[in-house]
Amino acid sequence: MTKVAVVGAAYTKFDEHWDKSLRDLSTEAGAKAILDAGLEGKDIKALFIGNMSAGRFIGQEHLAALTADHVGLTPIPATRVEAACASGALAFLHAYLAIRSGQYDIVVAAGAEKMTDIKGTDAIATLMGAGDQEWESAIGLTFTGLYALIAKAHMHKFGTTREQMAMVSVNNHMNGSLNPNAQFPKEITVDDVLNSPMIAEPLSVLDCSPITDGAAAVVLAKEEVARSTRNPIWVLGSSQASDTLALHNRKSLTEMSATKAAAKNAYEQAGLKPSDINIAEVHDCFSINEILAVEDLGFCEKGQGGNFVEQGSIKRDGSKPVNTAGGLKSIGHPVGATGIRQVVDIVKQLRGEYGQLQVNGAATGLALNLGGSGATAVVNIFGKEQRETFKTF
Amino acid sequence: MTKVAVVGAAYTKFDEHWDKSLRDLSTEAGAKAILDAGLEGKDIKALFIGNMSAGRFIGQEHLAALTADHVGLTPIPATRVEAACASGALAFLHAYLAIRSGQYDIVVAAGAEKMTDIKGTDAIATLMGAGDQEWESAIGLTFTGLYALIAKAHMHKFGTTREQMAMVSVNNHMNGSLNPNAQFPKEITVDDVLNSPMIAEPLSVLDCSPITDGAAAVVLAKEEVARSTRNPIWVLGSSQASDTLALHNRKSLTEMSATKAAAKNAYEQAGLKPSDINIAEVHDCFSINEILAVEDLGFCEKGQGGNFVEQGSIKRDGSKPVNTAGGLKSIGHPVGATGIRQVVDIVKQLRGEYGQLQVNGAATGLALNLGGSGATAVVNIFGKEQRETFKTF
Repeated sequence: MTKVAVVGAAYTKFDEHWDKSLRDLSTEAGAKAILDAGLEGKDIKALFIGNMSAGRFIGQEHLAALTADHVGLTPIPATRVEAACASGALAFLHAYLAIRSGQYDIVVAAGAEKMTDIKGTDAIATLMGAGDQEWESAIGLTFTGLYALIAKAHMHKFGTTREQMAMVSVNNHMNGSLNPNAQFPKEITVDDVLNSPMIAEPLSVLDCSPITDGAAAVVLAKEEVARSTRNPIWVLGSSQASDTLALHNRKSLTEMSATKAAAKNAYEQAGLKPSDINIAEVHDCFSINEILAVEDLGFCEKGQGGNFVEQGSIKRDGSKPVNTAGGLKSIGHPVGATGIRQVVDIVKQLRGEYGQLQVNGAATGLALNLGGSGATAVVNIFGKEQRETFKTF
Repeated sequence: MTKVAVVGAAYTKFDEHWDKSLRDLSTEAGAKAILDAGLEGKDIKALFIGNMSAGRFIGQEHLAALTADHVGLTPIPATRVEAACASGALAFLHAYLAIRSGQYDIVVAAGAEKMTDIKGTDAIATLMGAGDQEWESAIGLTFTGLYALIAKAHMHKFGTTREQMAMVSVNNHMNGSLNPNAQFPKEITVDDVLNSPMIAEPLSVLDCSPITDGAAAVVLAKEEVARSTRNPIWVLGSSQASDTLALHNRKSLTEMSATKAAAKNAYEQAGLKPSDINIAEVHDCFSINEILAVEDLGFCEKGQGGNFVEQGSIKRDGSKPVNTAGGLKSIGHPVGATGIRQVVDIVKQLRGEYGQLQVNGAATGLALNLGGSGATAVVNIFGKEQRETFKTF
């Protein structure tokens, strides 16, 4: 069975794009990724796109065919995949499986979202489509509210502090300040976070990722094709898992069981342990979630995520650099695009060509993309060297 | 590379379900399909669900994890696939590819839609999310309007008549009158169609499929598993293609180029010609579309679809029985569910156990599911006997 590599990767500036529509952003990201791969449009055999809610944000479903149309690639197979904020990574996973199935040799996996065309309050309501409509949305919960419950539970159980959560945002903004494609490329301080307006206690506005327009795309190719490209980055593991949508049905508020399940399979596929991972992109939609992520991915013990952050382990010169290009917090979070954007950042780091963002010596990287309050988790593991073992579940 | 069969299949009553939510319908269909397969929930390794627009119909995205949650199958991988009204067949196709990839051995592919919880006019607007928002929806076009343009062009170019289109609805209602799961299980006449209220000339209300709630599910399994089940139906070919969303960008209004592209590949995979297909389920969202379908699938010459219908070829005792259980017109069209419902009907026919709906001697069947006005086409071909050749594009 063929092995698969990422051979092209790009994302647009993440921003409020008043002059570009969703199709413009997807096309820009896709064209850049194909050029980055040294390929042409005619080489692409299929298209996958992750998008959460274009139906509500811009009145447009059927986004994959629309994208194939706008980029001039019809009649290629075009599939939209949706799992809330994990839509991007899930599009990647299915593009990967489609190549493994033998159906295609070169595939684009993209992610895109245009969130700023509706009112902010409508955007918040739209995003609650990722939660349980009958149990959560209907009673007025928001995602900040849901993650505030998680944060409170984590603080209560493990002594995690607001300052530690703030340090997540500070680190991501420090990294993002060097990223020209970030929506908010500026440094902030712990005091900035603590003194910013409270959204849902204990999460203030600077604990929260923003509303963003943007798109990202990668080109995946089977081994024979990948080996002829200049710098393939290999997919070592790719796995997804599900959990209850509604928080009240979870056994624990302080861990993401879907993350743990997806990570276990992805590590096993890759034949790697958490300690073998050099860099990671994790889903910091809210600061507390990065703390849960480093725990649930096995980078530190459960409950030690706050200390792990405080000790500087996640910094670019720390033991486990996390969100090295700015994370959702600083780069922005166009929800369907984020999972692919994370892959792009891992690929650029592993290629060793990320300029001022480069973390030296990174040979393995992991990306964790979550949907909702963790009901979907997707873990993809990448390496400069090919070494996967493919497991059937 | 493993071969794949459908080993379980079921759908709910298609209806206005005021007493059931979307998750209830999905769960009912999934449970029935798993029971039909003689399997248990714990045997299912992954879930795919096709759904077009639950975000707008019921305020709920993230439907795959929700379904896995509601049926008690977390943490299995759960993926929603969307391509407007072709979402169901596309979920099937990706479930099939995932098994071929070696990732899973037994997978459920479902489709579901709950369309009646919003006002009819809002449903029409929601459905236009399948068209081009910038070029079509924004100027007030509806899908009946789009297909009326297609019908007019076909009538003008080939002499197709309103009576011939009406005969499509008459045949589908005749079949559907025998289907206990159909939304409108009653016979109608050509005069009924011609005299029913005009929606968009030349399409009257009885040329149009209805707004429906419903869900459908099938269980797919790799060869080793399938051979131990009582009556596996083999997937011989599975292919998708894309076209422009907006009608004005098409080379022709009177053919669906995505159907032709998807059918060509699926026939090639199956090693079959159109004349080898015994029965077909095609996408009669509007009567004219069944006429285009029988042409574009190669069952008759281009332009001869109207005559093909008038001659009775599509009848249950005709040369090419089409929509033998009632089609979208009589069974109903819960948009995300339809593509899977078509597969269920093919499977039941090929098993030879469809009771009063049975078409005798059917050994091969084809299902065509379309999205929008044909921007996505998915063609799946099935057989009682295994005989596929798997082609990489």
